[in-house]
Amino acid sequence: MRIEDLPTPCLLLDKRVLERNLARMSARIHALGVHLRPHLKTAKSAIVARIATSGEAGGITVSTLAEAEYFAGHGFRDILVAAALSPQKLDRAAKLVDRGVDVSLITDDLDGARAIATHRAHFNVLIELDSGDHRAGIHADSDRLPEIARVLGVKFAGVMTHAGHSYGCRDIACIKQIADVERATVVNAAHRLRDSGIECRVVSVGSTPTMTHADSLDGVTEARPGVYMFQDLYQAEIGSCTMDDIAVTVLSSVIGKNESENRFLVDAGALALSKDRSTQSAPRDFGYGAVWDLDNEPVFGNCIVERVWQEHGMAVSDVKLDFRALTVGTRVRIGPNHACITAAAYDRYYVVEGGEVVAEWDRINGW
Amino acid sequence: MRIEDLPTPCLLLDKRVLERNLARMSARIHALGVHLRPHLKTAKSAIVARIATSGEAGGITVSTLAEAEYFAGHGFRDILVAAALSPQKLDRAAKLVDRGVDVSLITDDLDGARAIATHRAHFNVLIELDSGDHRAGIHADSDRLPEIARVLGVKFAGVMTHAGHSYGCRDIACIKQIADVERATVVNAAHRLRDSGIECRVVSVGSTPTMTHADSLDGVTEARPGVYMFQDLYQAEIGSCTMDDIAVTVLSSVIGKNESENRFLVDAGALALSKDRSTQSAPRDFGYGAVWDLDNEPVFGNCIVERVWQEHGMAVSDVKLDFRALTVGTRVRIGPNHACITAAAYDRYYVVEGGEVVAEWDRINGW
Repeated sequence: MRIEDLPTPCLLLDKRVLERNLARMSARIHALGVHLRPHLKTAKSAIVARIATSGEAGGITVSTLAEAEYFAGHGFRDILVAAALSPQKLDRAAKLVDRGVDVSLITDDLDGARAIATHRAHFNVLIELDSGDHRAGIHADSDRLPEIARVLGVKFAGVMTHAGHSYGCRDIACIKQIADVERATVVNAAHRLRDSGIECRVVSVGSTPTMTHADSLDGVTEARPGVYMFQDLYQAEIGSCTMDDIAVTVLSSVIGKNESENRFLVDAGALALSKDRSTQSAPRDFGYGAVWDLDNEPVFGNCIVERVWQEHGMAVSDVKLDFRALTVGTRVRIGPNHACITAAAYDRYYVVEGGEVVAEWDRINGW
Repeated sequence: MRIEDLPTPCLLLDKRVLERNLARMSARIHALGVHLRPHLKTAKSAIVARIATSGEAGGITVSTLAEAEYFAGHGFRDILVAAALSPQKLDRAAKLVDRGVDVSLITDDLDGARAIATHRAHFNVLIELDSGDHRAGIHADSDRLPEIARVLGVKFAGVMTHAGHSYGCRDIACIKQIADVERATVVNAAHRLRDSGIECRVVSVGSTPTMTHADSLDGVTEARPGVYMFQDLYQAEIGSCTMDDIAVTVLSSVIGKNESENRFLVDAGALALSKDRSTQSAPRDFGYGAVWDLDNEPVFGNCIVERVWQEHGMAVSDVKLDFRALTVGTRVRIGPNHACITAAAYDRYYVVEGGEVVAEWDRINGW
């Protein structure tokens, strides 16, 4: 089947670009002497996870129990759930342990740690540290660190952080600096714990920008980047990749045109593209996505989806559009601002090589 | 089952509020002497559609063919697809006609009209008019209007518009004014066509703000509001409803807290709430949602989800929070900015009456 025969809107995944992205990060992390535990919150696909873990069902990171259950069902046996769970979910997570899965959880809270410590199941637990993102996590020098580790007892496995604030960088020097703070945060915390006689096996970091540009991961045991698999307009803008590295696009059809206003409507709107506006704060603002032709070429000028409604996207350009080539039914591909959020609207990938659709891969959504 | 026993995040639908919203709009539209053809793009639920059409499988409006197929499968036989289809989808739409469904389509394009006119299936077609939203549609005085009607021939059924720009109003006088322009646009277009000897059976308008406040629908045959079923923070801000009319909320759990910063994390982030920021331009900006207790009471002060990441939401408040009552695992309900977009992240509703979960209703997502 050819791309142009697919129903719209749908999600295309370029296999060669995906494989190149996966190989590049894998080589980089291994060269830094660290284990790669890829974050599957972006791809949510067992086939992608296998390629990302070098063809085996290797250690992975997920963001929901729905993902953990799906990957366990596909043979993955070493899963880190890298978002704190409410205590009511521990019974559900324990069922994975019962099935032989090595389940790692994270916490930054004493009550949360007590709930895990007293649960019947053996979870491995990482304490979450704040390396500057100020989302979750305790400080590496906090008294809470050894306190939570002692509450966890034999379930304590190590420390982790996510330098999400690297997304705020606009140059590589900034990312390198944050990568160093990210590394130092967990390494210092691990030293503190070891100095007080607590074994700290896992020292875990990860974000795509920092893992793409870190000069050293000394003292770190594993890296957890995720969006590097697909990349997106925002990652290209902040220097994690080039536009050619974007592996996912939304295939859409022209459903209307307004020649006098030099714009057209596509059948990809707020649900098909998401309302993510990440690039609003980037050097180039792509609106809700960049509009390319079927070969991912920017033949329509600097053409972006400027406005969205539930099922409509309005595309505008900085050049005079040729409406003989943009009639209703014309197919376009739309590069996403934020691959993780856009992909979540779809239950499958149409995997493409050139103009050919070579496979359909599922993904696990929801919770 | 009680609300607090549900997994989080999940979508709650308050049955009494829903029924009240449906009854109010139904009474209003019928009092104005017009047929209500509710837009199911918000609810995407056959059970909601039945209540909205007075217990019968009455005429409805949808935004995708996936919705049309789902509702046809649930006995609905009169369906308007109120977003232009790319010509490649006509074969799929025709299968519904083959199954005995009265399928209405819309177009504002000569090529689009020719594709429908020459298709084997008998569709009813409405010409889309621009009443000021400047999304799609031709002007009521455009030469294109009779031209497209003649191309459609026997398939031409009438005219329609959607005054989406009523969402830009900040007071009821503004909404009433737009409602009048919306009505005048389609009525004038219908007169023009009839004056030139073209029968114009359907004269269709609709948006929740305009249908809530229109003083007259003279000359209109049907109204197509949608979000009135659920309402949301944005509709409350622009005067379509009160906060008590919001029927859908996201149930979420506290998964972290930061007492010194007076904030907490919930397990509803960008995917569970959507990245819709409609209220950014409203009198009150609710961030990504308003945080209430299990009774939908604003007991946490003016508490909003200020930031989201894929699976995390950060809640802040203008009052000092009581962290004895906000431990990890505490359940909260989050009122959505935009019900249509938030609901699309879920495959079901947990229908509640008071604190009791009384049913699970499915919904149809995707395309």
